[in-house]
Amino acid sequence: MRVDVALTAALAPADVSGLHVVVIDVLRASSTIVTALAAGADGVAPEADLDAAAARARAGGALLGGEREGLPPPGFDLGNSPADYDAAACAGRPVVLCTTNGTRAVQAVRGAARVMAGALLNAEATAAALACSGARDVLLVCAGSRGRVSAEDTAAAGCIAGSLALQAAAEFSDAGRVAIAHFDAWRHDLPGLLRRSEAGRRLAAIGLGADVGDCARVDTLPRVVELDGGGVFREVPA
Amino acid sequence: MRVDVALTAALAPADVSGLHVVVIDVLRASSTIVTALAAGADGVAPEADLDAAAARARAGGALLGGEREGLPPPGFDLGNSPADYDAAACAGRPVVLCTTNGTRAVQAVRGAARVMAGALLNAEATAAALACSGARDVLLVCAGSRGRVSAEDTAAAGCIAGSLALQAAAEFSDAGRVAIAHFDAWRHDLPGLLRRSEAGRRLAAIGLGADVGDCARVDTLPRVVELDGGGVFREVPA
Repeated sequence: MRVDVALTAALAPADVSGLHVVVIDVLRASSTIVTALAAGADGVAPEADLDAAAARARAGGALLGGEREGLPPPGFDLGNSPADYDAAACAGRPVVLCTTNGTRAVQAVRGAARVMAGALLNAEATAAALACSGARDVLLVCAGSRGRVSAEDTAAAGCIAGSLALQAAAEFSDAGRVAIAHFDAWRHDLPGLLRRSEAGRRLAAIGLGADVGDCARVDTLPRVVELDGGGVFREVPA
Repeated sequence: MRVDVALTAALAPADVSGLHVVVIDVLRASSTIVTALAAGADGVAPEADLDAAAARARAGGALLGGEREGLPPPGFDLGNSPADYDAAACAGRPVVLCTTNGTRAVQAVRGAARVMAGALLNAEATAAALACSGARDVLLVCAGSRGRVSAEDTAAAGCIAGSLALQAAAEFSDAGRVAIAHFDAWRHDLPGLLRRSEAGRRLAAIGLGADVGDCARVDTLPRVVELDGGGVFREVPA
């Protein structure tokens, strides 16, 4: 298995056909997607465009969630905080999620053989699913933040890559080695890393600092989450 | 001092005015530039284009060095191996250097307040010069390799950034933290990291594996190297 990491979505190759891709946006889209599905949401559809998201939610009777500048856009039912997506809010409901970085990263890799949503919350489960799948080429795509490398996505990529190294005969790209070293440096203080990160500080500044703790819990939601043929993230059997 | 790292040249901001920039191409352009100047070369002019490099060398009576696919192009005097640039070859001679990644990275940051050449060879000297300069905004630009993040450039960026942390009140971007963690993980086996890197393996495959050792020696050439107004790298007082 060859394992590469795109440290921002812009560094993902143009041609992703044949690749098994994990999109990682720890703060907060992939953490929120995993949380919503664990709470029983009937699929989470990522949409990059606000109007398209609103139209899709209306057409499907879905909850509409997401953010611009970190906060819920006008008319949205929910924001992009994992805590918004508890069972009371979303069990049995379809969700449409529109965020700045994460859902755009998903758009960039739509042509891949498989697109999973990875976070610290489900890192080990995601790695186990990849190891069992017989995938030859794995690409972990860090959404990053506003085109910049982000500490928390790089850490989650390193967490998944390091777990793959224990489960498969994996060969890592240089970027994969960089991500693994970064995760290893911070594995004992991931809440501290996320708090100090550029995105974490922006969240604190708008009163959403609690999200950081919710997104830093490694392997607490061991779900395998994958985009289906209709462009909706769903939980698949581990 | 704010310290950011562009993990590939493509991630450098479009507007670099006001920034103090260090361009890093460990394997091999910046290592070769530092080595040539330490051996007494009368400046090293980076040129991204083969024909422009040849014309500039002819016009200035300069040694013409560089590579395509790692090897010296036809008609070039020297390759891109640091070992090619000893005193016998280049003392007192101007040099024009044309390489694939490093000289292109220099082009991308020409508008900066200051452009230095950084390598493992001169990491500490480069950090000391930045710390003494009173620079407010430092950007370490990893050339990367063919648009990909490279392990050795990230390590050198982390080495310089980590040294800055000891010498100045530095605030690091997320990418800066990633680079520091990566350097720390490999600081006791940099030759091993460079050998295992994508670029290191390509060099070994074309018989230039010895370059890896020459480029992995931290702080053995404590020179401060900076682009002058004429676009030529020269040693400046430490």
